Amino acid sequence: MRAVVIEHGRILVRDEPDPVPEKGELLVRVQTAGLCGTDLQLLHGYAEFSGIPGHEFVGTVAKGPAELVGKRVVAEINCVCGRCEMCAGGLSNHCIRRTVVGISGRAGAFAEYLVVPIRNCHTIPETVSDEDAVFTEPLAAAYQVTRQIKLEPRMNVAVVGTGRLGLLVAQVMARSGCALVAIGRNPKTLGLLDRKRIRTALVSELRQVGDCDVVVDCTGSPDGLKTALRLVRPRGTIVMKTTCAADAPVDLTPLVVNEVTLLGSRCGPFDEALGALARRDIDVGSLVTRRLPLSAAAEAFELAAQPDHIKILLKVRQ
Amino acid sequence: MRAVVIEHGRILVRDEPDPVPEKGELLVRVQTAGLCGTDLQLLHGYAEFSGIPGHEFVGTVAKGPAELVGKRVVAEINCVCGRCEMCAGGLSNHCIRRTVVGISGRAGAFAEYLVVPIRNCHTIPETVSDEDAVFTEPLAAAYQVTRQIKLEPRMNVAVVGTGRLGLLVAQVMARSGCALVAIGRNPKTLGLLDRKRIRTALVSELRQVGDCDVVVDCTGSPDGLKTALRLVRPRGTIVMKTTCAADAPVDLTPLVVNEVTLLGSRCGPFDEALGALARRDIDVGSLVTRRLPLSAAAEAFELAAQPDHIKILLKVRQ
Repeated sequence: MRAVVIEHGRILVRDEPDPVPEKGELLVRVQTAGLCGTDLQLLHGYAEFSGIPGHEFVGTVAKGPAELVGKRVVAEINCVCGRCEMCAGGLSNHCIRRTVVGISGRAGAFAEYLVVPIRNCHTIPETVSDEDAVFTEPLAAAYQVTRQIKLEPRMNVAVVGTGRLGLLVAQVMARSGCALVAIGRNPKTLGLLDRKRIRTALVSELRQVGDCDVVVDCTGSPDGLKTALRLVRPRGTIVMKTTCAADAPVDLTPLVVNEVTLLGSRCGPFDEALGALARRDIDVGSLVTRRLPLSAAAEAFELAAQPDHIKILLKVRQ
Repeated sequence: MRAVVIEHGRILVRDEPDPVPEKGELLVRVQTAGLCGTDLQLLHGYAEFSGIPGHEFVGTVAKGPAELVGKRVVAEINCVCGRCEMCAGGLSNHCIRRTVVGISGRAGAFAEYLVVPIRNCHTIPETVSDEDAVFTEPLAAAYQVTRQIKLEPRMNVAVVGTGRLGLLVAQVMARSGCALVAIGRNPKTLGLLDRKRIRTALVSELRQVGDCDVVVDCTGSPDGLKTALRLVRPRGTIVMKTTCAADAPVDLTPLVVNEVTLLGSRCGPFDEALGALARRDIDVGSLVTRRLPLSAAAEAFELAAQPDHIKILLKVRQ
C-alpha cells in the first residue's frame, strides 16, 4: 500500500507492506485523514517518532467481524492492554503499556490501510459526512475540557489559541453559556468565531487582566502558558492542551503566588463528539482549508504549519 | 531602630526610622525572626524587592489595643483591603490591593520593630516557645497543602526537597498516614526525617517511577518540577511550593500527556500551625542550625544559602 512515512525529520511517500490485523483488531481502508499539530510536532522530533503518522481519520472496515465489514468508522487512538493498574482503575487512556495510533508504537492513518483494535472503533451516524467525521478525535479532545472542569454560566472563560484545536474548544465552551473570549494572533481565524457570535481578541491587544476563572491553552506554543498565567484569576484554572517538542523557559511563580490550578488535558470522549457532529452543534466544515492527495503529504505538512491554514485533509481514496 | 535592608542586591544593617502604626495596626517589638527561601530570592531580585525583609517572626505588642499590649504574637503576612472582589469572595490572601510583610510594599521583621494589621495577629499559646513560634508562618504554608488536597491513607505521596519548607511539609504529610517518601539531595536533612521514621530517598537514586498520587515540590528550584513530573502518576497531582527569581526551561509535555494536575500553593492557616506547635505534633526545634544577632544579617543570609544549614534565626532582642 502507499503510505506517508516520517523518517529522520523528513516526509516520505512510499510503498509499505499492507498491515495485517491480529486478534481483536480490524483492517480499515482509510478514506480521509486530517493533519493536526501533533503530526507537525512528530516531524520535529516529538515522541521520537518514526513510521506512519496520522490519528484523525475516517475509513471503511475492510476485514473484521461480519457485522462491521463495510461500515464507516472512526477510532480512538489509545490502544490499551486492559489489564494494568491504569486500565483496571478506569483510566485506560493512561494504560502503561499503550500504543497510540500514529503517535507511539503503532502505524497511523496516513496510508491506504491501517489496523486498529475493534474496541477502539465507533461507527459513524449516517448524518455525519466523511469529512466531518475526521474531526471526531480533535473534537473529543475539546470535549475533554468540559469533563475536567464544571463550566457555569457566570464564569469568565478564555480560550487562547485559535488554530485547529482552539476553534473547536472555543465552540464547545461557548455552548456552556459562560462569558467566553477566544484570543488569537490571526484575524482570519478570529473572524471565523466572530461570525459565530463568539467574542474574540487579538493577543497583542491584551492587557494584564487576571479575571478569568478558566483559561484553556490551545496555542501549541510555550507562549500560551505565559498568556494564560496573565489572564487567569487567583485560584483560577488553566487547562493545558499544548504539547511541545522542546523545553521552554517559563516562570511559574504566578502559578504559585496566585494558587492557580493547571490541568493537563489530552484525549476525550468520542461518543460526545460524534453526537455533537450528528446534531451539527459544532461547525467543523469551515475549518477545512485544503484537500490534498496522499502523494502530496509533504506539501500538506508545509501548509499545515502556515498560520492561514486550519485543517488540511489528506484524501486517501479520491 | 536598627534594621536589615535589602538594596540593589546587597544586605545592609543600618538605622531606619521607627515605624508608626496607623488605625487598625499594631507596633510589634520583634524578638526573633527566621530566614526563609523567599528572603534569599528577594536578595536575588524576586518581586523587585527593596526595603526591610523578614516575614517569619515572633514579637511582643508594643503599641495597640490595651488587651494586646505585652502579648506575644505572630502575624499573617498578607495585609488586605477587605473590600475588593477577592476579599469579598473569601479569598483575602489574594486581595488585589494587598501588601505582604517583608515581601511586597510593606517593611518586614528583620528590624527592632514592625507594624502589622491587628487582624493579622495571633497571640501565641503559652506552651509554644518563642523559637518554635517563628515557625508558625512556614508551618501554616505546609498545612495549606492538606487544605488543597484530600490525603488518604492508601495514597502514595512524595515530598521533593528536604530544606526548610520540605522538612515541615514532610512531617505534616506523614501525619495523614499516607505512604510517604521524602526525596532530597542532602543526607543530613534526610537523616532528620529518618529519625522520625519517615521514609527518605536521595534524588540521585530515583528511577523513573510515576506511581505517586501526590507530589509536593518544596525544592525552591526549577529542577523540582522536573523531578515531580517523573514521580507523579497519570491523573495525579503535583502541589507546587517553589517560587524562583528566574524563568526556567521545563518540558510540560508529560503534564499534558499524563493529564496531571499542578496546584500552586502559598500561605496557609495560622490557627492550625499554632495548634500543631502547641500539641508538639511537628518538631521544629531540630531545624534551627544557627542563631545570629541582627547585626550579623549578611552572614545569616550567606549561611541560609548553604545546604547544610536549615533554619537560621535572627535574635533581634538578645
